[in-house]
Amino acid sequence: MTTMFDEGLAPRQANFAQLSPATFVERSGRVFPDRLAVVHGVRRHTWAQVLRRSRQLAQALARLGIGKNDAVALMLLNTPEMVEAHYAIPGMNAVMLPLNVRLDAASIAFMLEHGDAKVVLADAEFFGTLAESLKILRAHGRPEPVIIDVLDSSLPPDPAAPRMGALEYEALLAAEDGSVPLRNADSEWDAIALAYTSGTTGQPKGVVTHHRGAYLNAVSNLVTWAMPLHPVYLWTLPMFHCDGWCFPWSIAAQAGVHVCLRKVDPVAIFKLIKQEGVTHYCGAPIVHNSMINEAQANPPKLGHPVKAMVAGAAPPAAMIEGLEGIGIEVTHVYGLTEVYGPAVVCPQQQAWGPLPLGERARLNARQGVRYPLQEAVEVLDPDTMQPVPHDGETIGEVMFRGNITMKGYLKNPEATEAAFAGGWFHSGDLAVVYPDGYLKIKDRSKDIIISGGENISSIEIEDVLYRHPAVLAVAVVAMPHDKWGETPCAFIELKAADQKRIAADPQAEEALRQDVVRHCREHLAGFKLPRAITFGELPKTSTGKIQKFELRGRAGSARAIDV
Amino acid sequence: MTTMFDEGLAPRQANFAQLSPATFVERSGRVFPDRLAVVHGVRRHTWAQVLRRSRQLAQALARLGIGKNDAVALMLLNTPEMVEAHYAIPGMNAVMLPLNVRLDAASIAFMLEHGDAKVVLADAEFFGTLAESLKILRAHGRPEPVIIDVLDSSLPPDPAAPRMGALEYEALLAAEDGSVPLRNADSEWDAIALAYTSGTTGQPKGVVTHHRGAYLNAVSNLVTWAMPLHPVYLWTLPMFHCDGWCFPWSIAAQAGVHVCLRKVDPVAIFKLIKQEGVTHYCGAPIVHNSMINEAQANPPKLGHPVKAMVAGAAPPAAMIEGLEGIGIEVTHVYGLTEVYGPAVVCPQQQAWGPLPLGERARLNARQGVRYPLQEAVEVLDPDTMQPVPHDGETIGEVMFRGNITMKGYLKNPEATEAAFAGGWFHSGDLAVVYPDGYLKIKDRSKDIIISGGENISSIEIEDVLYRHPAVLAVAVVAMPHDKWGETPCAFIELKAADQKRIAADPQAEEALRQDVVRHCREHLAGFKLPRAITFGELPKTSTGKIQKFELRGRAGSARAIDV
Repeated sequence: MTTMFDEGLAPRQANFAQLSPATFVERSGRVFPDRLAVVHGVRRHTWAQVLRRSRQLAQALARLGIGKNDAVALMLLNTPEMVEAHYAIPGMNAVMLPLNVRLDAASIAFMLEHGDAKVVLADAEFFGTLAESLKILRAHGRPEPVIIDVLDSSLPPDPAAPRMGALEYEALLAAEDGSVPLRNADSEWDAIALAYTSGTTGQPKGVVTHHRGAYLNAVSNLVTWAMPLHPVYLWTLPMFHCDGWCFPWSIAAQAGVHVCLRKVDPVAIFKLIKQEGVTHYCGAPIVHNSMINEAQANPPKLGHPVKAMVAGAAPPAAMIEGLEGIGIEVTHVYGLTEVYGPAVVCPQQQAWGPLPLGERARLNARQGVRYPLQEAVEVLDPDTMQPVPHDGETIGEVMFRGNITMKGYLKNPEATEAAFAGGWFHSGDLAVVYPDGYLKIKDRSKDIIISGGENISSIEIEDVLYRHPAVLAVAVVAMPHDKWGETPCAFIELKAADQKRIAADPQAEEALRQDVVRHCREHLAGFKLPRAITFGELPKTSTGKIQKFELRGRAGSARAIDV
Repeated sequence: MTTMFDEGLAPRQANFAQLSPATFVERSGRVFPDRLAVVHGVRRHTWAQVLRRSRQLAQALARLGIGKNDAVALMLLNTPEMVEAHYAIPGMNAVMLPLNVRLDAASIAFMLEHGDAKVVLADAEFFGTLAESLKILRAHGRPEPVIIDVLDSSLPPDPAAPRMGALEYEALLAAEDGSVPLRNADSEWDAIALAYTSGTTGQPKGVVTHHRGAYLNAVSNLVTWAMPLHPVYLWTLPMFHCDGWCFPWSIAAQAGVHVCLRKVDPVAIFKLIKQEGVTHYCGAPIVHNSMINEAQANPPKLGHPVKAMVAGAAPPAAMIEGLEGIGIEVTHVYGLTEVYGPAVVCPQQQAWGPLPLGERARLNARQGVRYPLQEAVEVLDPDTMQPVPHDGETIGEVMFRGNITMKGYLKNPEATEAAFAGGWFHSGDLAVVYPDGYLKIKDRSKDIIISGGENISSIEIEDVLYRHPAVLAVAVVAMPHDKWGETPCAFIELKAADQKRIAADPQAEEALRQDVVRHCREHLAGFKLPRAITFGELPKTSTGKIQKFELRGRAGSARAIDV
């Protein structure tokens, strides 16, 4: 029924625009043309330059025949070209396909083929892998994508450096005049990116996200952090991971500075924080831990407050304390590629302020509540789809509903339907909800250890182990056990000093193992104690997440200890 | 054409929600239940209470038969009930109809009739006017709306106070359990509010706004001010004006505190700023000027930084200096009801910092650039619809395009089509654009004074007059002139001390008039000098805007002076 509030009042050009993050780039390029936008070694670009270069890239891609719904793969590190790709490709209604640069050639080939990539922007560091991937495509009889060589001019020039494609990034840009403004997508529901999740089994799934969600999560980041004009953002988080959690567009909206970084290195991080006045950065726990470790050896004097986001695992008390000691205030967030990066945040309540650090850390280690612009996050019983009681004990599955949720999985209707069953996106993460409404992840469905019929949360054991002073990183997985079915098996990466100590003295290793067991016994029920403890470097994904699936393989052969 | 990025990937419940500000209220009520949300005299409500009361109001209105597209009129001041109405009515998909409480009964009757108000929430202060309005409706044979009496419990209790309707607000709320969550609109394009512009000629026009725009401008406010969690917002701006510029929802999104205020009074304002720790407020220049005036008499010690927004006229240097002296940082914004309040902002550039105050004020007196989440603001030649050159001289009309633009005018297709002609919303304000892209309003189309064929900006003359130390408020309008066609005529409201001085001594008045003329002659070309200067209180709208149309009537009989 048309009422007087609709009659003649349909949307039209003057009052309806597609939500699309390109609008932020055009605004900052025009309003703050002379402000610094990108720093990469000796390279410095203003917002006018970044806008111009992004427009040039969009024009160049259009000249190559790229248009709506064409995938442009990005095999890039956190460099200026990666920032520009995040502006140019959405700004011409094409689709970004960011590749995890640490994957093998076969995986990359799968993504290029499955996502039908028309173009690849490739950093010279990855020419070797990419060449292998293209061989696979050729073997499959697939057309090869156009390769655009990206030669990072912040690196020492190397005239003998190999070239891969016929096209070079800077030359392509130079041929365009940058006169065509970036535009919003034809529809805010159009695909903005295709990102493959590093599936632990089977082929990776292609997460298709849309302009509306990317726009809203970019703004949600700003609201969560109350990010002021001109933040200085350090790229410790790989931009290929969930489009850098949408921060490329958040920074554009506030005309901030992207401080680029090819490789996470705590010495470089502290240098850049001081030198460039970095105010914000994000990362997995391993990034923050490596910084704390470095700060213990060489205490940095930051001279200004810094805000950090941590996701991927709950920040243990030692991490919060360590960061606070350096002058870094940490916000705990949680999310997945399917929900554009951070989708849950743990806002610190005023009442927590006077509590002892351990208690604050325990509260802050919970994942929290929905991100401000996401409509709903609930922990539901996946069988009944009813919310679990808010008792801090009953486990259910974390589910999302709202605008900041993917379109679905590419060419995978079964996976899409399963993920959206019952009108909610099923995260696969198991959690409880506390009486204050904050949720806490207990485990991935597949990470629960079932020992003698009891569910054991591997995360609970990891949290305890993180509080041991020698532990830098830890992962607990299930180990097959004749009697109990499964028992916990812990893999521990030690801090540098402890590593050296036990490398030099096998007896020290055994003493440390016993000390770790004592520590666990103090904080855990007997049936939860790890039955095997292995010291060594942990296998990690490019985003710093520990690869449990690899450890599960090793757990079968771990040596059980008597606890 | 359906591509792989759309196949099977249409919007569904899990990944698409209507943008609607109710979501912010539900979130803060749940995540920050014990935080203070509303202060009004001795009344204090937490976010849990405000959420519960808003839900109760929605349930009570539903019980009265109110639903989608039904208008609920609000004849309220800035009290807790007005905040709750902004949450309950959109949260049940009904339409708010905020009334300018200072209008006469005939205007109110027109709005109730034209907007087909089903219910009126009325503060006891306005029962008299409202009763007159209802008489008019009866005379027109129109059904009367249901009246809900709002009896402000922060006022001294008055058992003899009259009642108007059969229903009383608190009793209605008490009959509901608050169990039904506020919900997003069925469609983000649904009407959220109907607001009548105080048209200077003819009947007022009913501006219909939508949920999508209100949601986005509420967030745009947060981004513009980088508003942190828990801001303390003082209601110096009437909430009935453009839905309080969408700040009721901005404050909800960051779980802030609404500090209510029935009446603008600088003594009360400073008291509340100190007592409640107010961090933000908005208002017309007259609000800020009255505060500066009061601060000169009784210097306040605020003890914490305060941010203010000013709109309605450019802030003169004296105002910026005066506010800075008190410790208030002012942001200059510009907008109209049709664009949800602030739609243009003047961000201060780093390069302005070292400039002398006068120069900074001149730069900051420009209206500026588009609000962060509005898609476009341009100054176009209304004939060719082409942008004017950015020369700071060529005058065009300010036009908007984007999501934060009204649906149109209610039951007024001619006005709607005219307003949206050529795919842009025509503001009726005339402006120039400077080389840095900042626009500056020169006048309303109808405020331009045409003298001997030359266009004279009344605002330019007002800016000069505002710099005179005796001037509190000023308006310049056209006065008929035999030779020149029109000449400028100035109406000046003096500061309290100067008012007293000239009231006591007629010679002092003439001396002051001559001093004002001297001041003008120093800063203006001869043909722009006001030919008449009248001292006295200025007629203002309820939002503090000076009513030039009334002064135009008086200008005809103003006594010309020899300049």
